[in-house]
Amino acid sequence: MPIIIPEDQSREYCSLLFQKLGAKKEDADIMGDHLTMSEMRGIYSHGLSRIPVYTRKLDGGGFNANAEMKIVKEYPGSFMLDADKAFGPVSGKFVMNRLVEKAKTSGFASAVLTNANHWGFLGYYSMMALEHDMVGFVFCNATGTTSIYGSPHRFVGTSPISVAIPAGKCDPIVFDAASSAVAMGKVNVANLEGRSIPEEWTYDKNGHATTNPADALSGGCMRAFGGYKGSGIAILISVLSAAIAAMPNDFMNNDSNPASGNNVGGIMQVIDISKFRDIDEFKGQVDEFITAAKAQPKGEGVEEIFMPGEIEFNKYRAFKKQGGFEVGPALFQTLKDSADKYGLVYDFSDWER
Amino acid sequence: MPIIIPEDQSREYCSLLFQKLGAKKEDADIMGDHLTMSEMRGIYSHGLSRIPVYTRKLDGGGFNANAEMKIVKEYPGSFMLDADKAFGPVSGKFVMNRLVEKAKTSGFASAVLTNANHWGFLGYYSMMALEHDMVGFVFCNATGTTSIYGSPHRFVGTSPISVAIPAGKCDPIVFDAASSAVAMGKVNVANLEGRSIPEEWTYDKNGHATTNPADALSGGCMRAFGGYKGSGIAILISVLSAAIAAMPNDFMNNDSNPASGNNVGGIMQVIDISKFRDIDEFKGQVDEFITAAKAQPKGEGVEEIFMPGEIEFNKYRAFKKQGGFEVGPALFQTLKDSADKYGLVYDFSDWER
Repeated sequence: MPIIIPEDQSREYCSLLFQKLGAKKEDADIMGDHLTMSEMRGIYSHGLSRIPVYTRKLDGGGFNANAEMKIVKEYPGSFMLDADKAFGPVSGKFVMNRLVEKAKTSGFASAVLTNANHWGFLGYYSMMALEHDMVGFVFCNATGTTSIYGSPHRFVGTSPISVAIPAGKCDPIVFDAASSAVAMGKVNVANLEGRSIPEEWTYDKNGHATTNPADALSGGCMRAFGGYKGSGIAILISVLSAAIAAMPNDFMNNDSNPASGNNVGGIMQVIDISKFRDIDEFKGQVDEFITAAKAQPKGEGVEEIFMPGEIEFNKYRAFKKQGGFEVGPALFQTLKDSADKYGLVYDFSDWER
Repeated sequence: MPIIIPEDQSREYCSLLFQKLGAKKEDADIMGDHLTMSEMRGIYSHGLSRIPVYTRKLDGGGFNANAEMKIVKEYPGSFMLDADKAFGPVSGKFVMNRLVEKAKTSGFASAVLTNANHWGFLGYYSMMALEHDMVGFVFCNATGTTSIYGSPHRFVGTSPISVAIPAGKCDPIVFDAASSAVAMGKVNVANLEGRSIPEEWTYDKNGHATTNPADALSGGCMRAFGGYKGSGIAILISVLSAAIAAMPNDFMNNDSNPASGNNVGGIMQVIDISKFRDIDEFKGQVDEFITAAKAQPKGEGVEEIFMPGEIEFNKYRAFKKQGGFEVGPALFQTLKDSADKYGLVYDFSDWER
C-alpha cells in the first residue's frame, strides 16, 4: 500500500509540528510550504526527511523561533540582512519579497544574508521572482562536506546555486543544483534505504572512491561536479558567501551541535527584466530557445532533452494529479515519531490508502 | 630559436595595426592591452591568434571603429549599454569602470550590454574590480558552437563566465572559463598546429566523438562541461544574456559575415565588499581559505592544488621574468602577414633572439 501524503496535509502537519516546538504560526507555515514544495517537485533530499534535523535544531536553539531579523545595511542597489538564526525559508522568503520590490526601481536588486540557517532547496527562492516576471538568482555556502579538485577530502560545502528565468508558454527555466556531484541529502537517503551510490559521487575517509553511502558519511566526502571547472564554481560560491557575510569558512564550520546555527551566508538577486526589455518579447525569446532545444537531434539512447527544472515541473504536475506525493515507510515512521516526540496529535489516516 | 614577444611591443604592434584599420588610438591601445594580457596569462586561445579574426571584422565593418556607445537605461542599481558594435574590450572596459564607480554608492552594481562584440577573455573585466578591492562578475553569450546535455549537436555558445575575488597576501581568486568543456580557441589552435584533441571535448558533424579538431570545426561542435549541471549553466548564460539584451539566440546567430557584428549580450556586475564587511577582514578570510585549500591532502598523482586563476598568475610571473611571452612560428608569420596586409611597417627584430 503506497503512502501518499496530500499536499495540504503535508503543509498542515509540518506547520503544527513546528508550532509545537515554539515557532510562530506564520513562520511554521513557511516551513510547511517549503518542505512540501520540495517533495512536490521531487526534490526528496530537501523535503520531509529533513524534519528530524530541523526539529533538533529548533529544540536545541540553533534555529531561533523568536529571531529578530534586521536590515543592517541598505544601499540603492542592495541590502544586507542579519537573519538572527531564523529558519532559512523565513529569511529567504523575506529577502526575495523585498528584492522584488527593490528591483522595480533599481533594475537589479541584490542582498547579502548573514547569521543564516540552511535554506533548503534554493529553487524555492529563485522561483519567487517568476511570479513577477523577474529573474531570481541565489547561492549560499554550507558546512564543508565536499572535496575540491586535486584533493579527495572534505573542504567546501555543497555550494548550491539556483537561477530562475521566466518563459511564456513553456515552463520557466529553473536551474537548482549543488556544486557537488550530488546533493548530500541523496547520500543520506540512500544510506537510510540501504542502497548503493555511484562511484563518482563520493570518497571515503581515506580518500578512496566508494559505492557505500555509509562510508561517505562517516568521515568521507562528496566530490565537486564537473572536474576543475565545477570545483572552481564550488570554491567561488563557498568563499564569497562566507567571507562577505563574515561567517566561518566551510572547513571551519562545525554546526553539528543542536544549539549552533548553521552559520551560513548567501547572496540573493532579482532582475526586473521589464526595465531592460519588453517582458513579452523576452518571454517569447525564451520560449523560442526552449522549443528549439527540445527539438534538437538527440544523442544515442536519449529519449527526451530536458531544460533545467523541467523534470521537477513534470513531477509537480504528476503529484498534483494523484493528489499528493509518495513517501517510503521509513520516512512515514519518522514523521509519526516526530509527532509523538513533540506531543502533536495528528490524524495520519488519509496517508495510507 | 624561440620567438619571445616583449610585452610592450605586443601592445604597440596590436595598437598600431588596429589604428591602420581606422581604430582610434585610445581604442586600439585597449585592444593591444587585452590581447597582450591574454597571452601574458597563458590564455593563448584569446591572444594574438585572434588578430586575423578581429582585423577581418574591423575591415568589414562588423567591428565599428567609430562606435557611439550609449547608456540606454539607467537605474539606481544598474544600467544598460548599447555598445554600437564597438570592440568588445572597449565596451567591457567602459562598463566595468562605470560599475566600480556605481558600486561605491549602490553596493552591488550591474549592467546589461547589448549590440556587443566578442569580449575576448572575460577575466580581463572581472579583474578590473580587484584593483578597487571589489568583486567582479561577468558572463555573456556567443554564436552556437556547443552542444547541450542530451544532444551531440551545436546549440549554445561557449557561455563563458568569470568571477574575480580579492585576496590579501595570496593571489586573488579568478575563475575564468567557458561552459564548454574547452574554449573554442583551443580547438582552433590545435587545428592550426595539427595536434589531436581529447575525445571529451567535441563531437563531429554526425554527433560522434572525435579527436580530430578539423572534424569538430567543420560542422561539429564542442560539448558543455560537467554533464547536465554544466549544460544547465551553459543554458542559463546563453538564454539570459541573449534575451535580456534582445540579441538573437545562439543557435540563430550567424556572425560569419565580416560586415556583421557578433550580436551578443552580456551581464557585468561589481560588488563593493566594503559596503558589507571590513575589507581587510574579508581579504584575510579569503587568504585563510586559499592557504587551507592548498594545504589539503592531495589525491594520488596530484603535485599541487591550484586555486582558480593561480596557474595564470604563475604564467604571468614567468613571462614577466623572461621579458615576454613565447609564440609559435605559424602565429609569428600570421602577425607579419597582417602587418603587410594592412601596410604596417614594424620592426620585428627583437622577437627572434
